[in-house]
Amino acid sequence: MRLFFLTTLLAGTLAMNAQNEEKAVLDRIYSDALTTPNAYYNLTELCTKAPGRLLGSPASETAISLLKNQLEKIHPDTVYLQKYRTPSWRCKAPAKAMILLRDGRKEPLNVVNLGLSPSTPSGGIAADIVEVHSMKELDSLGTEGINGKIVFFNRPMDNTKLNTFMAYGGAVDQRSGAGKAAQYGAVGAIVRSVATENDDFPHTGVGHFRAGEKGIANLAVSTNDANKLSRINRQYPGVKVWMESTTENLDTLESANLIAEIKGSVHPEKIILIGAHIDSWFNTPGAHDDGTGCAQVVDVLRIFKVLGLHPQNTIRMVLFMDEEMTQSGARTYAGFVGKEQKQHIACIETDAGGLLPLGFDLDGTDAMLQSLRKQTDKLTDYGVYQMIQGYGGEDVGFLKQYGFPLIGLLTNSQRYFEYHHSANDTVDKVSRREMQLGTASIASLVYLIDKNGL
Amino acid sequence: MRLFFLTTLLAGTLAMNAQNEEKAVLDRIYSDALTTPNAYYNLTELCTKAPGRLLGSPASETAISLLKNQLEKIHPDTVYLQKYRTPSWRCKAPAKAMILLRDGRKEPLNVVNLGLSPSTPSGGIAADIVEVHSMKELDSLGTEGINGKIVFFNRPMDNTKLNTFMAYGGAVDQRSGAGKAAQYGAVGAIVRSVATENDDFPHTGVGHFRAGEKGIANLAVSTNDANKLSRINRQYPGVKVWMESTTENLDTLESANLIAEIKGSVHPEKIILIGAHIDSWFNTPGAHDDGTGCAQVVDVLRIFKVLGLHPQNTIRMVLFMDEEMTQSGARTYAGFVGKEQKQHIACIETDAGGLLPLGFDLDGTDAMLQSLRKQTDKLTDYGVYQMIQGYGGEDVGFLKQYGFPLIGLLTNSQRYFEYHHSANDTVDKVSRREMQLGTASIASLVYLIDKNGL
Repeated sequence: MRLFFLTTLLAGTLAMNAQNEEKAVLDRIYSDALTTPNAYYNLTELCTKAPGRLLGSPASETAISLLKNQLEKIHPDTVYLQKYRTPSWRCKAPAKAMILLRDGRKEPLNVVNLGLSPSTPSGGIAADIVEVHSMKELDSLGTEGINGKIVFFNRPMDNTKLNTFMAYGGAVDQRSGAGKAAQYGAVGAIVRSVATENDDFPHTGVGHFRAGEKGIANLAVSTNDANKLSRINRQYPGVKVWMESTTENLDTLESANLIAEIKGSVHPEKIILIGAHIDSWFNTPGAHDDGTGCAQVVDVLRIFKVLGLHPQNTIRMVLFMDEEMTQSGARTYAGFVGKEQKQHIACIETDAGGLLPLGFDLDGTDAMLQSLRKQTDKLTDYGVYQMIQGYGGEDVGFLKQYGFPLIGLLTNSQRYFEYHHSANDTVDKVSRREMQLGTASIASLVYLIDKNGL
Repeated sequence: MRLFFLTTLLAGTLAMNAQNEEKAVLDRIYSDALTTPNAYYNLTELCTKAPGRLLGSPASETAISLLKNQLEKIHPDTVYLQKYRTPSWRCKAPAKAMILLRDGRKEPLNVVNLGLSPSTPSGGIAADIVEVHSMKELDSLGTEGINGKIVFFNRPMDNTKLNTFMAYGGAVDQRSGAGKAAQYGAVGAIVRSVATENDDFPHTGVGHFRAGEKGIANLAVSTNDANKLSRINRQYPGVKVWMESTTENLDTLESANLIAEIKGSVHPEKIILIGAHIDSWFNTPGAHDDGTGCAQVVDVLRIFKVLGLHPQNTIRMVLFMDEEMTQSGARTYAGFVGKEQKQHIACIETDAGGLLPLGFDLDGTDAMLQSLRKQTDKLTDYGVYQMIQGYGGEDVGFLKQYGFPLIGLLTNSQRYFEYHHSANDTVDKVSRREMQLGTASIASLVYLIDKNGL
């Protein structure tokens, strides 16, 4: 009994020491993240030297090059490009639109191309507009109501939703309504920006055309101008809108994901993935989407190096290309994982803005969730209080086929759709401390998963 | 037994209905707050028409007048001024300072007067500087090290602290170091801005002189220029600094708190207080400090009126004057409560910025905390997850003598000291949704306390 008692006591003491050691490491991670300026400098460099870094653009190549340079300064064990070939699309000239009033005056509209939008004929098109609020309304209008017109999709985000990502999900279908409108004979589409505020920034995003759908020019209009267009169209029925779109599809070109690793000291073949995406839309510096994500995961590697944390498993940072348009980078990486056959203990993505982190969400089993909570419960003192079932992320989502736990950083979503996919997504909208709390939260989760498993 | 069972079942059903009704009201409060623009318009009006609304300034009178007008549009049962008389202080001309390099060149510094700072002699003063980091270091230098010099207090905020208000508390003593420096013969003081970021904004705040201390001019310098001054002083020992302060004490003048009430339908003599402060420093629009607080508590009254919530107890909104300098408004109100002798069920203050609300803190007994948690637990779905012992607030703090529960809105503190007491505290730094989640959190807490007691 006494021996048993002593052994228990000893085990208890060791457990306590392990806990204290963990706490000390977490404190060091947070302190370093909150006092080291590197990540904010890296973010600023990316957004000022490579704004508009859409797949296939010169800016996307600049971005890869400068991110590679940022990573090499940290001296991880490997830094390499995962090259692949894919087609792309670009906006050749800024989209334009205006309301043609019946007295001859013209009211310009703040518009931008939605991604993958075809061109209008040179010189643009002018047509009557028809305002709709849902695909059902579009169907009910049918060819009789739509033929020869520009369809104006004008359903706002539901601002009563507490989580703006939920409200986004409830409005974003409108960006992909042009194809259906074209089946009823529409000649163009203008879509209310999916944004929480009334302002003058048009917000882009991808507009999909389904197989067999005819492509027609597809623009986003600012929320203020959507309100104006709706008002004028009600007051003066029969006003026309002129719109011009000048875009082109790009032949297959070379692009790349950017990967860096710190090799595991015990299980180098097991991977903890941390990811973000390099690309942004053509019309924005892409600070919160996803410049901050890139700066965060690069900084996680820096923190592991600077604090001398030698992981047992390999930490693999993946900066994905082309999250925004066709996810060609994520598909390429997922294909590579299928061949490489390395277990991913966890796949963590940060693509919800460099805003106050509130926790993580998981796309995985309830058993994984319980296991994760044992680790994230250690982070409540640092403000990480949510660990819930959810989404993971767009890029890591392609790894779902392998059954890996897919984990997303959850942030304060209230400001995100003031900036998202618009020229308003600038570095000055990023709070250094908020972004770095996110960095520290990811680094801490990686540290705990590496140490304690999942 | 059966009767007992049925009674229990009935009681259970009633309790469930009451819960559902509560939840429905909370949903309506949040939905209204998140979709009604009034509060943001009110904030914009206050900050654009009455920036720099320090006690006794013309802007402070404009602020009272326009806030009164905003309130009257809501039609509460009463709107009135609680007038009082008090002395004040003002900055007659912007403070100036520069480094005098030995080759004759001058390096200007971004400075601002600290509140209550005396003037320099006309034309300013020039003297050697001595950099210190604590009052202890000041003492150790003594008259020999200090006499005839300008003392430069240059201890930064501790950026490793997760809660920036804690870091603020650890640095703000420097603003009141001038009096002690003067005892050792200092001729002026320059204080590093108490701010989290390195930028060019000087941040003011009150600098107290204790009884018997001699007043000397007391300026705040931007963090960037504090770093510059420190660097130049190390590289070229013996550089001088020139500084000029032009201020004056104001004779006793009339000012006022602004009060509005919705009378209780059952216990009109019992008060639930919601408060914020009207005044701001002279150098700032005062959006987060505390324009958002004013907009929030005014909007709580609007929400009660619009949703037809008839409180059992009286909701008294108090907009305090002069939180920043001498708390003359809070003292006046506390004196009034001593005479009025009305029980305050709860005193809720919002003065931590219009940023994402995380919960509330209490200055009160543990029994009060337990009681409050029963109500705030109902708000976790809305992101209100903290209910902890803490501070309450500067203005409601003067009611502590009466034993009332003093409750403060807790917000995301990460960005606050980028703006606080500087020209950077502008309306565009306020997210409408974040501010309005605060409004809804306060309205919900008032509703629950009114309905269920504390």
